[in-house]
Amino acid sequence: MVNLSDIRAANQRIQKYVHRTPLLSSSSLNADTGARLAFKCENFQRTGAFKARGAFNAVFSLVDQQATRGVVTSSSGNQAAALALAGRTRGIPVYVAMPKIALQSKVAAVRRYGGEITWVEGTEKVPTAEEYDAAVAAIQAKTQANAVHPYNDPRTIAGQGTCALEFAEEQPRLEMVLAPVGGGGLLAGTCVAAKELNPKIKVIGCEPEMANDAQRSLRSGRILTQSQPQTIADGLRTSLGYLTFPIIQHYCDDVVTVSEKAIVSAMRLAWEILKIIIEPSSAVALAAVLEAKVEVSGRCVGIILSGGNVDVDHLPWIPEHRG
Amino acid sequence: MVNLSDIRAANQRIQKYVHRTPLLSSSSLNADTGARLAFKCENFQRTGAFKARGAFNAVFSLVDQQATRGVVTSSSGNQAAALALAGRTRGIPVYVAMPKIALQSKVAAVRRYGGEITWVEGTEKVPTAEEYDAAVAAIQAKTQANAVHPYNDPRTIAGQGTCALEFAEEQPRLEMVLAPVGGGGLLAGTCVAAKELNPKIKVIGCEPEMANDAQRSLRSGRILTQSQPQTIADGLRTSLGYLTFPIIQHYCDDVVTVSEKAIVSAMRLAWEILKIIIEPSSAVALAAVLEAKVEVSGRCVGIILSGGNVDVDHLPWIPEHRG
Repeated sequence: MVNLSDIRAANQRIQKYVHRTPLLSSSSLNADTGARLAFKCENFQRTGAFKARGAFNAVFSLVDQQATRGVVTSSSGNQAAALALAGRTRGIPVYVAMPKIALQSKVAAVRRYGGEITWVEGTEKVPTAEEYDAAVAAIQAKTQANAVHPYNDPRTIAGQGTCALEFAEEQPRLEMVLAPVGGGGLLAGTCVAAKELNPKIKVIGCEPEMANDAQRSLRSGRILTQSQPQTIADGLRTSLGYLTFPIIQHYCDDVVTVSEKAIVSAMRLAWEILKIIIEPSSAVALAAVLEAKVEVSGRCVGIILSGGNVDVDHLPWIPEHRG
Repeated sequence: MVNLSDIRAANQRIQKYVHRTPLLSSSSLNADTGARLAFKCENFQRTGAFKARGAFNAVFSLVDQQATRGVVTSSSGNQAAALALAGRTRGIPVYVAMPKIALQSKVAAVRRYGGEITWVEGTEKVPTAEEYDAAVAAIQAKTQANAVHPYNDPRTIAGQGTCALEFAEEQPRLEMVLAPVGGGGLLAGTCVAAKELNPKIKVIGCEPEMANDAQRSLRSGRILTQSQPQTIADGLRTSLGYLTFPIIQHYCDDVVTVSEKAIVSAMRLAWEILKIIIEPSSAVALAAVLEAKVEVSGRCVGIILSGGNVDVDHLPWIPEHRG
């Protein structure tokens, strides 16, 4: 349904619009872990997250006649901003269904890129997949816009796979890739790219213990959802989709879970040691290394840092009321 | 006293120990300023600041017989950590005179690299150059260690100049370089490298209004010092030295000053837009662009981001007591 040639085609399609993100490494983190860790910095990607890859691929896959009707998606943030930028770049309308709980900085990014926001009705909490889908359907009924699903869409998955394609080219000795998993678009794309390039590369999904639907789904052999996970990793609260699950089931070596405490520690470590801003969802793969959920010693391990959109007024290690 | 060939020699000497730091750019910052801004990321340098360049150059300039006695410097932080790492790399003792007001994170870095700290006596405030020199002299009397001045030392200046040497190679169209100025080691090295490579490159020093000794010194034609500047840019509280002043006087096109507010805004902007951690001292050159102290429109402008060592528990835009 998505294969390496789709990812190569996506790479051709989007490369003039998205950044080839840099790899970073740290001799002190290597010394601490005994591994050679390479960090793929999607926090430096356009709109501050890997989502730009899938969004540009979806928008520029449309034929002109379709494209003029615009695109619509649902998102708590990074997908919305990415689709808004991709749509603006193509000069077409972008509609986004967002929850009221979305971070202000993420809402502001969508508006900056000219996206039209519709609030998901009747909920002040994390909307369910059904609530999101209903909101998108309502917008489509009015606008005839093309739906671009944030993860359950072959164009999205192929776009996200370009990250691992670059990673494997830049780091030919890669033995393992760790990627965060929420809805599974990034992990599914990573699986296809890495495994079809070199089946020996291990691919491990990393998710919060508090939103461990991917691990439970893989172990039970069917999609298990979760309701209202409160993890700080706000990008990973969604469950796997019917397109991402079978790809992950087929290719992914394991899914490991990490504690909330480890997510915050990993985020802080990246800030202090790598000197880069990453968001909590971005920190789960490094958290898995810190909590020794993955055996990395002696290996060349790629860690995808998925995004860097943080509200710098509110940091998880600074109490809101001091003194 | 320091020329381009010294900087080229320094570059040869240190290149296996220090990072060739990446350049970053931002399409949104370019759109906002009408310039092509290139950021040289010394926050990604070893020990988190450009100081590693001068420290490695000084330590590896010593002949073996000298080197065994170790090295000594004075610093509120970044120079201390840089010399400690360079000394450890060469396997020689490192002694550092630090003020009690140094950030805990900077003290911890010196200890991590095995540096031996002596607190500058009799002061809980920013020590004067004389107090620092006296502390270094006392350590030398006991240890016979080689003094490596944080800025007033040709080896240090030549090492810091390697940053602009790389910058000009990586960005051949560079029309202007903006560098922070405290004691003037980085600015002096930048002047020599840029001007001796291409006299058409404008070099502008940037400093806090609250620590504007370099601007006053250049305008009056002699070194004017300042006492106890309280600027948030803790790395820029020192005054120019007798070696850095004449180089800057000879080569530097201008020194501009920025407000404390602009420093904090620029720091925050780098965090939010570039997704990188920079410290306040590092933000003054971007602050000069934000406050329109330098005309950058239509130009290819290099901005040296000098370091990224920040105490992430205490951020200038988050009040210590909320609610």
